[in-house]
Amino acid sequence: MTRDARAVSQYREDGKLRHFLDTDGLSAETLLEIFDVADSLVGVSQRSVKKVPLLRGRTIVLLFFEPSTRTRTTFEIAAKRLSADVITVNVATSATRKGESLLDTIHTLQAMQTDMFVVRHADTGAAHLIASQVADHVAVVNAGDGCHAHPTQALLDMYTVRRAGLEFNNLRVAIVGDLLHSRVARSQIHALRTLGVGDIRVVGPRTLVPDSFAALGTRVVRDLREGLADVDLVMMLRLQRERMASGFLPSDREYFEQWGLTRDKLAVASKRVLVTHPGPINRGVEIDSAVADGPSSLILPQVSNGIAIRMAVYANPGKALPE
Amino acid sequence: MTRDARAVSQYREDGKLRHFLDTDGLSAETLLEIFDVADSLVGVSQRSVKKVPLLRGRTIVLLFFEPSTRTRTTFEIAAKRLSADVITVNVATSATRKGESLLDTIHTLQAMQTDMFVVRHADTGAAHLIASQVADHVAVVNAGDGCHAHPTQALLDMYTVRRAGLEFNNLRVAIVGDLLHSRVARSQIHALRTLGVGDIRVVGPRTLVPDSFAALGTRVVRDLREGLADVDLVMMLRLQRERMASGFLPSDREYFEQWGLTRDKLAVASKRVLVTHPGPINRGVEIDSAVADGPSSLILPQVSNGIAIRMAVYANPGKALPE
Amino acid sequence: MTRDARAVSQYREDGKLRHFLDTDGLSAETLLEIFDVADSLVGVSQRSVKKVPLLRGRTIVLLFFEPSTRTRTTFEIAAKRLSADVITVNVATSATRKGESLLDTIHTLQAMQTDMFVVRHADTGAAHLIASQVADHVAVVNAGDGCHAHPTQALLDMYTVRRAGLEFNNLRVAIVGDLLHSRVARSQIHALRTLGVGDIRVVGPRTLVPDSFAALGTRVVRDLREGLADVDLVMMLRLQRERMASGFLPSDREYFEQWGLTRDKLAVASKRVLVTHPGPINRGVEIDSAVADGPSSLILPQVSNGIAIRMAVYANPGKALPE
Repeated sequence: MTRDARAVSQYREDGKLRHFLDTDGLSAETLLEIFDVADSLVGVSQRSVKKVPLLRGRTIVLLFFEPSTRTRTTFEIAAKRLSADVITVNVATSATRKGESLLDTIHTLQAMQTDMFVVRHADTGAAHLIASQVADHVAVVNAGDGCHAHPTQALLDMYTVRRAGLEFNNLRVAIVGDLLHSRVARSQIHALRTLGVGDIRVVGPRTLVPDSFAALGTRVVRDLREGLADVDLVMMLRLQRERMASGFLPSDREYFEQWGLTRDKLAVASKRVLVTHPGPINRGVEIDSAVADGPSSLILPQVSNGIAIRMAVYANPGKALPE
Repeated sequence: MTRDARAVSQYREDGKLRHFLDTDGLSAETLLEIFDVADSLVGVSQRSVKKVPLLRGRTIVLLFFEPSTRTRTTFEIAAKRLSADVITVNVATSATRKGESLLDTIHTLQAMQTDMFVVRHADTGAAHLIASQVADHVAVVNAGDGCHAHPTQALLDMYTVRRAGLEFNNLRVAIVGDLLHSRVARSQIHALRTLGVGDIRVVGPRTLVPDSFAALGTRVVRDLREGLADVDLVMMLRLQRERMASGFLPSDREYFEQWGLTRDKLAVASKRVLVTHPGPINRGVEIDSAVADGPSSLILPQVSNGIAIRMAVYANPGKALPE
Repeated sequence: MTRDARAVSQYREDGKLRHFLDTDGLSAETLLEIFDVADSLVGVSQRSVKKVPLLRGRTIVLLFFEPSTRTRTTFEIAAKRLSADVITVNVATSATRKGESLLDTIHTLQAMQTDMFVVRHADTGAAHLIASQVADHVAVVNAGDGCHAHPTQALLDMYTVRRAGLEFNNLRVAIVGDLLHSRVARSQIHALRTLGVGDIRVVGPRTLVPDSFAALGTRVVRDLREGLADVDLVMMLRLQRERMASGFLPSDREYFEQWGLTRDKLAVASKRVLVTHPGPINRGVEIDSAVADGPSSLILPQVSNGIAIRMAVYANPGKALPE
């Protein structure tokens, strides 16, 4: 990725949102506007006819350079509920070994007069790079790049917290687990800070939560109970074994013993503490089933809200497209 | 699968069909009602605009734990002709080694406010297990589980027989071939008995047709000509080599010699005998091309009727959904 | 493939186009009619609502016996912009080792009352064979068969040339590179000749451009500069390494040295020379980036026009279908 790619703005010159690449760089106003659009769309999925014509005749390309059934499904459902046409393009990594080849793929797809690329890629910055290269008529949505960002996931987390009735001012939040390999943790921290959260603790062992996270405006805590003390919100992360080199971790049992979220450990948090997890869950590793399926859990509301947030993200750049 | 899962009812408390898991447990009234709905939908596919808005805005998930292009295609076409949105989710078996993981997949998909799961799974009872776990707003359709059931296939067989003008009363039927590994044979037997067929013969070698089939209300016959004598309907089965441990069978040639359906062998049947086969056909193994492509064959009408039956199955649980 | 399969006509008895298998056998009138239809549809993709209801309720099957993301994507987008329902069927070659099996697949798919098969196959003549076997209500479109034909690609090339303002009369054309393994070269030559182009040069080494190409009405040239002298149009071909046995070629560098298109070599052509390439490009092998991305290049317009041409091909056989 070039310096230029990272510097690509998510906004148009008129201040409207064009791309959706990262929570970093988005204003609180933009985030709240997306939440408001999501509020107006969340009801669509609760009707028997789950469909509005907002993006009828638009072509959305799901451009997946690494497979992800779950994320692909949410973006596909959200697009179809807005009546868009969805084209799924799975690009084997082998086919794009050369940088030029990736760009040729992009230029070819936009020459087909497609409107939006939803990009999933194993490399950090891939969505930014693509956004820096596309024509004016194409919007890029980042559906996860490397260990870097997964902004729709972070946004649906925040949206779920808001719908659960929590206020971002005075919120005490603990983000727990494998921050190092998580694509969502950085996006969450940016979003929380933008929304005015002051007390953000990142909690985990040195191998998974480097001291450098303090630079993002968080407090690094090396003890789970200390991290959870009096928090209103616990944002668990999935142990990203697939992105880890071996030797990082002790056994599952030892990890769970020290860092797994149980009802017992959660007792030190606020009485009304809520718990999020981006899924899929490693039950008995980073979280106990009694917590995941318990009254504090927001895990399934997160999934439902994820459809509304993705619809809102589609619709918002859509507003900036020429009518 | 737990005992509870098997005990899941396909009906709602108000007597309407909710799930469609097996022909076992469905009343004759229900089967005939589905046939009537299919009658009203079969014409849709014969028009140039093959589409009605019956399920517009509904989200149907094709949840395939084992690949099946043919079955997937029929369910996808049927759903699209009813204007539903279709999401295909192929789940590698490896991703669901743990029971919890399967349930988490289900809970996640239903949190996306999907309306129906069409489930294909290599394990017996998988669709029942899923049906026992889903929320009220989700209907489950079994598209084949292990060697257990494949009820839409059995239903389209019956529907094809009815459309061909045969009456179920006084029908003499031979089911021939590999019943042991067939997911459709049990579903066929249940449907035939429910519809009032008294003379059902199951015909094949001991390795493929265990004596235990007699307990289902059939007569086990070990000689093809005896099995075919005077029957009105021959339901051939596909030799399921992919589900067979080796050592079951002699060579294809020997099998065909003894059990393959030829015009010559069929001569002992009723003059107007009709022949079904669920496809894909192993020509020259279980059936001769002269029969498969001949005037007695219902094989292609079965395919056409399969679209109408799947539309009817979608529409019928659909009727029970809240408007 | 049988002799009969090759002899299948692309026209109905009333003179309307039924199948679209090859440019060979199509009249100039038909080609121009397709261009006119494309002219009327090219604007659809330039609107924000890229959709017309021309093929609403039709079922188009993308029947791919070999994978091709790019071609599949263009046919899928074109079909959806005409409001057709699209079913993608990827058939592993292993599943169709026997000829009967291919036909059974075809007969099964048409029994589902599908309207059109878009066929991609590694074997020469596969689309013709299928067209010779389908029922009256099914139209077959060849999306590439072996090294034989790729007629929609050839047609979009011609359409792009026409839209760029070139006249086919008096046109001087060089087709350069790997003609032997190209499925598009033969289709291009037939289309150029049908449209009245007299000066067609085929340019490349003996291993890639056999002398036999002269029989198609072209002039075989063994020197790139001689081939390019005064031409108005250069149609580059992709080096089809995947279809080549080893030993055909020297290194990429040597190939580029002798046969790669550079601005320097292009200087001997007409001042207003235009360059096409079917993509994906091997940059620095058959073409230099300065040419591919330069002012002479029609590569991206080809992609855009490819959508319009495929819409026109769909729509034209569509006109012949019963209303």
